[in-house]
Amino acid sequence: MRKASVYIALLHHPMYNKRMDIVATSVTNLDLHDIARVARTYNVDGFYVVHPSANQQQLIGEILSYWQEGYGGSYNPDRKEAFEILHRAENLAEIMAEIEQTTGQRPVTVATDARRYPNTISYRTLKEEIFSQDKVYLLLFGTGWGMEQSLMQQCDYILEPIAVDSDYNHLSVRSAVSIIVDRLLGEFWFIP
Amino acid sequence: MRKASVYIALLHHPMYNKRMDIVATSVTNLDLHDIARVARTYNVDGFYVVHPSANQQQLIGEILSYWQEGYGGSYNPDRKEAFEILHRAENLAEIMAEIEQTTGQRPVTVATDARRYPNTISYRTLKEEIFSQDKVYLLLFGTGWGMEQSLMQQCDYILEPIAVDSDYNHLSVRSAVSIIVDRLLGEFWFIP
Repeated sequence: MRKASVYIALLHHPMYNKRMDIVATSVTNLDLHDIARVARTYNVDGFYVVHPSANQQQLIGEILSYWQEGYGGSYNPDRKEAFEILHRAENLAEIMAEIEQTTGQRPVTVATDARRYPNTISYRTLKEEIFSQDKVYLLLFGTGWGMEQSLMQQCDYILEPIAVDSDYNHLSVRSAVSIIVDRLLGEFWFIP
Repeated sequence: MRKASVYIALLHHPMYNKRMDIVATSVTNLDLHDIARVARTYNVDGFYVVHPSANQQQLIGEILSYWQEGYGGSYNPDRKEAFEILHRAENLAEIMAEIEQTTGQRPVTVATDARRYPNTISYRTLKEEIFSQDKVYLLLFGTGWGMEQSLMQQCDYILEPIAVDSDYNHLSVRSAVSIIVDRLLGEFWFIP
């Protein structure tokens, strides 16, 4: 059993676009579904979808209410259950405050990125911490062409990229979250 | 470096629906994108999308041609590259024949499912085989409410479920493929 509490956040601002401008990306319906299902499967303590715009916040709310109160919830109760751990937030500061209020601890922030950085933490080291220490972690996932640099640098840790040895590293955020959560929170399938 | 060739197939028939009727499911655009990107990242030898209906085959063809020859390919060359390993097929027999013709070997078929079966193969054992043996593997992924039983039983192996210890096991096929391919073909991140 893991000892730490673990939260994940999907951020839509400040992100890079293809030309490395700083933008807010749009909410993608299937990101919410796929990531909520991963989060529920691995008993993540909360999944935050973060967007500064009221309009996009409303879109998230409409998706949630269809699956929680509307037809979706009775058609597919598993989906309703997954969405119960999804929360909306306007920015990172709001999440930090909310988690601190719930857990009594300021979360250790962990940025993820497909690019290489110096001083990254390995999956193995972070997994060992999560399973042995009574701390609170917040894993941050970006959208678009990735998280803006200064946001990355504010984080306590930067996790190493997923496919360090590959000549192609363009996974969807849905795949990246699935793989990273499996590596960090999943069973120890690799131990004989 | 792994020794084996590994192919993956996304099947749409024969699948169960929610009521356990046997059906053909619809092709989902983002399945093609997400799984092609995973396959390319992990150097999978080929990704087959399998559907018996001419109509759905045509839909797959239209998506591919947008990203390979249309505007998509020039807008996002990474996506074009990922789609180069995507092939269409009408049924499993067609894929088996095609892989055997390419590699000279009949592929070892590996079914995946969220349900438990007796005689499943573990991730660790299959990963060791893939990295040490000069064989050809074909990993089969279902859609809808999972692969029809007799199809499962025809396979050489059934892989154990992903989240054996979880009280919730409803991942999207996009997440399941990401996690399973990472476990079987990914780097040995868990070794110190």
